[in-house]
Amino acid sequence: VLAANAAAAARVRSRLREAGTLVVNLIASPGAGKTTLLEATVAQLGERLRIGAIVGDIATERDADRLRRLGVPARQITTGGACHLDARQVEGALAQGGLDGLDLLLIENVGNLICPTSYDLGEDWKTVLLSVAEGDDKPFKYPGIFARAAFAVITKADLLPHVTFALDVARAQIAALNPEGRCIVLSARTGEGVDAWTGLLVAALAAKRAEISRSAEAARR
Amino acid sequence: VLAANAAAAARVRSRLREAGTLVVNLIASPGAGKTTLLEATVAQLGERLRIGAIVGDIATERDADRLRRLGVPARQITTGGACHLDARQVEGALAQGGLDGLDLLLIENVGNLICPTSYDLGEDWKTVLLSVAEGDDKPFKYPGIFARAAFAVITKADLLPHVTFALDVARAQIAALNPEGRCIVLSARTGEGVDAWTGLLVAALAAKRAEISRSAEAARR
Repeated sequence: VLAANAAAAARVRSRLREAGTLVVNLIASPGAGKTTLLEATVAQLGERLRIGAIVGDIATERDADRLRRLGVPARQITTGGACHLDARQVEGALAQGGLDGLDLLLIENVGNLICPTSYDLGEDWKTVLLSVAEGDDKPFKYPGIFARAAFAVITKADLLPHVTFALDVARAQIAALNPEGRCIVLSARTGEGVDAWTGLLVAALAAKRAEISRSAEAARR
Repeated sequence: VLAANAAAAARVRSRLREAGTLVVNLIASPGAGKTTLLEATVAQLGERLRIGAIVGDIATERDADRLRRLGVPARQITTGGACHLDARQVEGALAQGGLDGLDLLLIENVGNLICPTSYDLGEDWKTVLLSVAEGDDKPFKYPGIFARAAFAVITKADLLPHVTFALDVARAQIAALNPEGRCIVLSARTGEGVDAWTGLLVAALAAKRAEISRSAEAARR
């Protein structure tokens, strides 16, 4: 299963590299705020970048509908019972068209902090979201995804006054699991911290495009 | 895998029926408040009932430690990477001793709204927890567990003023998925609603014991 997934992921990665599209795979528990972060991202970057989305859920088209309302091309993958997206599903969603020529493709995985961790979808990086309502002990309890995600986003910071969540405790766990990772704290609801996230995306897109140009240049020589 | 699990679940169920122990399998996303609900349950019932716990996590002994601090015998199952508990793990935890002669055995599953749904652990019933911070759209997005759980507990009600969560929307989805199920709203933090939950447990234990007596009586005749 994982070998077939890896082959499909390589095809997806190659296709999206050719298109110059930055691809981010968002992984989190149910209700950590993945769709809301996508909405906030579109609100900040939608006029500068062509953004598309692939959204995974066990059931319902609800999340894709939320994004389509913002004018974002969005494909919903409903997995039936499956607990994660795989690269063949992403390949299938791309083959349906409507997601070509994007600057940024955001893939919202099924709400699950465990199973999506092992599946490469052809993304440039994985991002893990952790809502402050979930508690500051979660990185050490779900170490796999926090070790693998290039970026950890602590969401729903507006709830910090109402919950028991020590930012320094969570940050220390994340740093221990992934010393090279970065951690951003934000509230998509109030907008606080969202610019740090969108700034990352813009910088990463520029870096990917520059790398693609250098490779093309080197190939011509 | 599921057949071997079913056989182990039958052995667990038989063993705990003989002991007259009520067994509840708690299933929820990471950070929905499973351990906090167990703590609140022990605080209300700990003097009247002998309560024990089996706690599943990918990593760390943290949740079992929280319960042991309250004087509750607790076995932690760390699954490595596995996304759910199975009945053989529960059987193994029981075989280690320390959980005999209980009135109530609370099994806290791995934080995951999807994978634990398919695994019978030998419990009397499954309970699903949904934190109001997760959003009122979750029952229809994760229909499997809401259809199967005899009881749905909406947790962290103290956060209702700070999040967008319509109780009637969530309740309607839960009722549609499981017309015979019951739904309780509580805050383990403030204690609001916890007595409805503990009342359920006490009544179910009495009903189980009465049923066991009737069976024994019928067998003697």
